This record gives sequence, structure tokens and C-alpha cells, in this order.
Amino acid sequence: MAEVFPEPLRRAIRALSLLPGLGEKSATRLALYLISHPERAGELAAALADLPRVKLCRECGNFTEGDLCRLCQDPERDPTVICVVEDPAALSVIEGTGAFRGRYHVLHGVLSPRDGLGPSELRFPELLQRIRRNGVREVLIGLSPTAAGEATAAYLLEILREFPVKVSRLATGLALGMEVRYADPLTLKRALAAREVLKD
Amino acid sequence: MAEVFPEPLRRAIRALSLLPGLGEKSATRLALYLISHPERAGELAAALADLPRVKLCRECGNFTEGDLCRLCQDPERDPTVICVVEDPAALSVIEGTGAFRGRYHVLHGVLSPRDGLGPSELRFPELLQRIRRNGVREVLIGLSPTAAGEATAAYLLEILREFPVKVSRLATGLALGMEVRYADPLTLKRALAAREVLKD
Repeated sequence: MAEVFPEPLRRAIRALSLLPGLGEKSATRLALYLISHPERAGELAAALADLPRVKLCRECGNFTEGDLCRLCQDPERDPTVICVVEDPAALSVIEGTGAFRGRYHVLHGVLSPRDGLGPSELRFPELLQRIRRNGVREVLIGLSPTAAGEATAAYLLEILREFPVKVSRLATGLALGMEVRYADPLTLKRALAAREVLKD
Repeated sequence: MAEVFPEPLRRAIRALSLLPGLGEKSATRLALYLISHPERAGELAAALADLPRVKLCRECGNFTEGDLCRLCQDPERDPTVICVVEDPAALSVIEGTGAFRGRYHVLHGVLSPRDGLGPSELRFPELLQRIRRNGVREVLIGLSPTAAGEATAAYLLEILREFPVKVSRLATGLALGMEVRYADPLTLKRALAAREVLKD
């Protein structure tokens, strides 16, 4: 449908329609908006050019600009309780509840043999190192109660058996099959408060 | 919710959430996707940087890279029939039907006093010039049957009165595939008044 448009516009439509959740129609709508709002296009282009500055916190794996993310630098946060999450989006939503004051550990995925994600693709070794080094008392599993999340939680419990740490997980007040990143804060708060102890 | 993210990421989320139809949630989802797909972010940034190359066809007002858009350059298209549309998106959809082989004229808006869009903000003078110059026989009004579109059509009919051209407009009535029980009263009234005679 966009064949009547010049190449630069079609290129923008193509680039936008490759993003998740944007079909050709929404991509066209956005591109036409950006053409008539060059300041917005400029802001977005500058922001995109800046994205490579984002790297992973060497401690927890969260996104950061420096070496350590702001959560790992915060002396107010309890370093002896670590909440394990699948990705920074999940971290952000849990953090948004304000109900957790420990540290995080981002696995950057859950076990998914189908997608070639085995234990060695996820940040388990870094977690064990942190536990050994920092006198961690509790590992709170903050993974989604999906099949892959449950499998990952089971694996985590297994490798943590030899460590003198408490292992808990978010209460399943969460609807089964729902992903943490889409949960509402109230449900998440409930799940944090009622977390089940799996090993003490 | 994105406060745990570093500034470049939050900047991308902000820039995306300023686009129409994207809330903070979708903007965050897209930004996280772009972080983990730097090649897509690069394509999009390059496309955005290229957008200023797009300008308006000096003849019809459609988007173009050169002076004349590809439709105005096409010798196969009848220059004596001009379809007047509100914007390039409308042009693109009409063109997509393959049912119109004349030229277009893009007004870049419809009359809307509330938004400060009066006759002098729209490309009426250029239309009149084309009619005078090119021996135009018919002006097909391809504007939306909204209040503002109707007002613009009425204005157009008025200023075209002194020209020896036929003026037509897109038929209004029930959309194909629409059920009568869901039709709005205005559409139905129009469909009744403009009923087609099938047998006399």
C-alpha cells in the first residue's frame, strides 16, 4: 500500500514494521507522524544512537551505563537477599512495587531447550559467585510461573541445595501462565509478601 | 516504572512513548527489544536520519524525493481527472485499490477552524492553478465523510463553481460487509436517500 511513497519514507515504514507488535499499518501511521514532526524523529534517532552505551551491570546483570547499576551501588539495599529475575523488564516491574529492598540478579532468560537456552547460557555462575562472596542469606526466585520459569526455578533450587541459604519464591497469587513483566503492582505486592519458602 | 534503567534506555523509552498510539508500556517493550537487537535499532536510526529527504511534490503535494512524485511523472495517468484527498495516507489507500487512474491533489488537512485550519492553510490555490493550466475535466472529491470533510467538500464545490469542470465525490453508504443492524443512523439515512435503483 505504501508504494506511492518515496524510498526514504518506505525505508522508515520497513524499519518500524520490523519491531514487535507493529504491523504495516501502525508502522505507516508512525512514519507519517514522524515526517510531520521532525523534532520527534530527531529525538528518537538520537536516543537510538545512544543505546549502545547501555551495558550489563557486572554484579547483577541489570542494564547500566557504568560498571555497576544504580541498585547495586545503593548502600541502603540489603545485599544478603537476592531476587532472581529473568530479564530487566521483570526487575523493573518488581522494583516498581517498592516492596523489595534487597538486590537483584538478572538471568537474561529462562531455561528453554527449544530456544537453545541451557544452564550455561544463563547467568547462574555469577549468582553462585555472589552467594559465596557476599554472605547471602536468601535467594528469592522472582521468575514467571510459566513452564519454562518453573523449570528454571527447579534447576535453581537444585544448584542451591548445597548452599546455606534460604530459597523462596514469589507466591503464586499470579495467574498461571502470566508473565511477570505484565503483572499489575498489587498482585505483585501480594506475591512478594506471601512468598513461599522452598528451603530453609 | 523505568527508573531502574540507565539514562540512554529511559531516553529511548521517552522518545518512543511520545509517538501516537504508544503508551509507556509499549515504548518500554520496544526499547528493550531495540537494546537486544542493535541491528534493528541501527536500521531505524538510519531511516529516521533519512526522513528529511522527503518533501512535497510541487504538483500534487504527495510525498516525494524529487521535485515531482512518481504519480505526477507517470504519463499513463490521466491528468484531466484529479482526486482531492486530505493527506498522503488517504492517497495511498485509494491508490491501493487500483481503481483510479487519474492524478491526485493532497490538501494536507481539512477545514477545521478549531485547529486553526482555514482555507489559506490548505493547498486550494495550487489546485485551482492546476485546473486552469491542465485542461482538467473532473475533480473527484476523495475526502472523508466526517463533519470537517463535508465542510471542506462544500467549500471546494463553492470555489469550483466558476470553473467548467465536473465535480464528483466518493459514494457514501453502507460499508461492504457491514451488517445493517450495526450501521449508525447517519450512514443509514444517507444510504436510504442515495438508494440505487436496481429495476424500474
